Amino acid sequence: MSEKRGVCLIIGAGDDTGAGIARAFARDGLVSCLVRRDRHADALEALAQSIRDEGYDARAYPADARKEDVMIDLFDQIEAEVGPIEVAVFNIGANVIFNVTDTTSRVFSKVWEMACFAGFLMGREAAKRMQDRGRGTIIFTGATASVRGGAGFSAFASAKHGLRAFAQSLAREMGPKNVHVAHTIIDGKIDSSFIRDNFADVDAMRDQDGILNPDHIAQNYVMLYHQPRSAWTHELDLRPWSEKW
Amino acid sequence: MSEKRGVCLIIGAGDDTGAGIARAFARDGLVSCLVRRDRHADALEALAQSIRDEGYDARAYPADARKEDVMIDLFDQIEAEVGPIEVAVFNIGANVIFNVTDTTSRVFSKVWEMACFAGFLMGREAAKRMQDRGRGTIIFTGATASVRGGAGFSAFASAKHGLRAFAQSLAREMGPKNVHVAHTIIDGKIDSSFIRDNFADVDAMRDQDGILNPDHIAQNYVMLYHQPRSAWTHELDLRPWSEKW
Amino acid sequence: MSEKRGVCLIIGAGDDTGAGIARAFARDGLVSCLVRRDRHADALEALAQSIRDEGYDARAYPADARKEDVMIDLFDQIEAEVGPIEVAVFNIGANVIFNVTDTTSRVFSKVWEMACFAGFLMGREAAKRMQDRGRGTIIFTGATASVRGGAGFSAFASAKHGLRAFAQSLAREMGPKNVHVAHTIIDGKIDSSFIRDNFADVDAMRDQDGILNPDHIAQNYVMLYHQPRSAWTHELDLRPWSEKW
Amino acid sequence: MSEKRGVCLIIGAGDDTGAGIARAFARDGLVSCLVRRDRHADALEALAQSIRDEGYDARAYPADARKEDVMIDLFDQIEAEVGPIEVAVFNIGANVIFNVTDTTSRVFSKVWEMACFAGFLMGREAAKRMQDRGRGTIIFTGATASVRGGAGFSAFASAKHGLRAFAQSLAREMGPKNVHVAHTIIDGKIDSSFIRDNFADVDAMRDQDGILNPDHIAQNYVMLYHQPRSAWTHELDLRPWSEKW
Repeated sequence: MSEKRGVCLIIGAGDDTGAGIARAFARDGLVSCLVRRDRHADALEALAQSIRDEGYDARAYPADARKEDVMIDLFDQIEAEVGPIEVAVFNIGANVIFNVTDTTSRVFSKVWEMACFAGFLMGREAAKRMQDRGRGTIIFTGATASVRGGAGFSAFASAKHGLRAFAQSLAREMGPKNVHVAHTIIDGKIDSSFIRDNFADVDAMRDQDGILNPDHIAQNYVMLYHQPRSAWTHELDLRPWSEKW
Repeated sequence: MSEKRGVCLIIGAGDDTGAGIARAFARDGLVSCLVRRDRHADALEALAQSIRDEGYDARAYPADARKEDVMIDLFDQIEAEVGPIEVAVFNIGANVIFNVTDTTSRVFSKVWEMACFAGFLMGREAAKRMQDRGRGTIIFTGATASVRGGAGFSAFASAKHGLRAFAQSLAREMGPKNVHVAHTIIDGKIDSSFIRDNFADVDAMRDQDGILNPDHIAQNYVMLYHQPRSAWTHELDLRPWSEKW
Repeated sequence: MSEKRGVCLIIGAGDDTGAGIARAFARDGLVSCLVRRDRHADALEALAQSIRDEGYDARAYPADARKEDVMIDLFDQIEAEVGPIEVAVFNIGANVIFNVTDTTSRVFSKVWEMACFAGFLMGREAAKRMQDRGRGTIIFTGATASVRGGAGFSAFASAKHGLRAFAQSLAREMGPKNVHVAHTIIDGKIDSSFIRDNFADVDAMRDQDGILNPDHIAQNYVMLYHQPRSAWTHELDLRPWSEKW
Repeated sequence: MSEKRGVCLIIGAGDDTGAGIARAFARDGLVSCLVRRDRHADALEALAQSIRDEGYDARAYPADARKEDVMIDLFDQIEAEVGPIEVAVFNIGANVIFNVTDTTSRVFSKVWEMACFAGFLMGREAAKRMQDRGRGTIIFTGATASVRGGAGFSAFASAKHGLRAFAQSLAREMGPKNVHVAHTIIDGKIDSSFIRDNFADVDAMRDQDGILNPDHIAQNYVMLYHQPRSAWTHELDLRPWSEKW
């Protein structure tokens, strides 16, 4: 086992927040193992390569995080190939906006599978392994919809509330086993491809730090990982200075 | 349409809280249409009969509330046979207690299907019909786990938080269409067959009103239905006077 | 004691919500004892008279609810003259809007004295007497600012949060003594002289029930008083159907 | 002005959490200016000296933080003598436990003056100066009682809820002026003289990190100070890994 190194698993290693988190933990000395669906395998590999180009370690594991067998195998494979998972981050977003009366059962279910059920699978598999080792950190990415419903947000808010309740329950079970479970509430636009494609003034917002920088979000995840256990944070919010709330 | 009468639909018309709600709305002059799974068809019919024996109107509709087609057909059938749904109550419980590491994906999914997804289906179908008529009341039964996670409660709290977020989102959409959406937080033991089978001191608690009486819970549902629209309640809690909280 | 009758004490019996509450409890059979500052003694007496003109019982007690000695004497006087206080309602508003940097220490303190400290005095004095009798209802009027801070609302939100925490603590202490403590969250404009003086479209809002009707608010206070103790509500919100939230 | 150096003002620089915060900001390069009541002037000077003995800068300013004139003069004096206040931390605790019926108006008022009103004064004075400079960080120390009332906690919870609402309102006003306002929720026993005097097993808890280490709390305050403004945290909780919650 001597050559095995600590792993940060990132479920939902997209181009923006997930990428920032992956880079930050790799720079912190962990091997970032990146998970995203098969159809994004090229982007995932490119992200891993870009981290390796910096001189850090990252590996791409395209997989569907909603499949229980796939996830169990993936945890086993990564722990066998790379090392013990020290940090597990659940970062799948699934934001959609529909009025309730226009929300199909397919949409409602798919959003829940991605944003909540996959989080349960990751949390449970990480918890199993971490409680046996008596160490580890599990972080879930939340949103304003995690704490408040809203017109148009029934599917997303329902799934995100469900994820938050899961994270809180897991924290209460895992704390006494020395496993740190945290949940972040991201409140504001993230400097992401989605936002850049859909809003006109992103450059101006970025110049003013008025949009969440993924690297700045990621600093907080690494900070949570390093908190001494006499003072663990379960939940913190993050928003740009200029955000109305 | 002149002979059609206002309907109160109760999804989850079990022996205790659901039965109390069904009786209360029937006594209030509505036709209580009771829904529970097929395997409880006899109990459902017995409940409907007991309400009719009192001189009020109630009808049994055994059905699986997690099936979209079944639910859509049921709404259509009831509105055709009986009358417009004035009140729709979602009252399916699905309380289970497992540590996260002992929670199967089947349990996590089934609890969500029963406690959250079926609530979405009912809420959406009721909202569609009620917004067209510009009137109606939709009530969801919540629990302490709707607002707080806890060790052992990850599946139940996740589903109940998801239902609460759905109810809150629906309320924000439907209020301006004159449809009243409410969510109750039941905090404490209910005088139910489950509690009677599992706790020794139920008689003593009942003598002291130390356990939630289903008829007293139900009064609040009828009260919500009658609130004038200048002052609608979205959320209220209910607990016995002697409950620690 | 045989001729003594049950009393509803209303601290903050202004022209609108307080008046509605006073009327509602008088119609319910209690003697409404109305408290408001000396400078409003004429309005207070007029309100009491208008209730008596309806054939119910109400009495005016001009007093400063922020003065401990005054309040203790008032409780003693009312219980000696009229009867045991069955219901105590704290309804003093103190809404002001200032940026923090423009908030004088006088404003911050006065808002707290009116909206929180006076509520503590009333709650404590009512609790003392009610716990000895093993019965009673205490209701505090809250606002959106009771659960959320906001720009311009630092003084008001601080005092209202303080009142809510007091009410919640009192409820946890008094429940097991059979004293029901509740807190309402009024979210929206009330059909009051202040609103009528400051907004142009009140008549249109009233025609549409788009503004909180004091009598409709008051119905909920009477409902709380009548809740059987197996199912008590501690907190409920009230807003017009058309309110954005 | 060239010789003036950035200041961290700590109101409530007691022996434990306040001392940890003072040391942490001094080590971070700021001049820690320590405020505590006159009667603790010796302890305050000893704390300042102990920080200077480490090679950092700290100065003792005994003062009553509940006195508006005293606080305004103190802000002016420190900014004139030492430099601009970069960070202002409000850390006065005032925990008392009384049933409501045993809570004197003196206790209720004093707890509020210490735990809430003094926080308002500090927050306002810091905000005035920081908004003119377009920079600064203001942090308030909260507790579990900041978010939940409880039997025995009416005075403390009322004051702490009031402080939290003030902090949240201030954050919404000051964010867009580039002043970062944060609120921490300390949930658990702190390794403090009070706890050491009143609990038997503190050494065992400390050996297991089962009690909040003031230096570990303080790290989070420095972290908040350094957060880039694209991703500011307003609220975070802190508790030992082994804490039940």
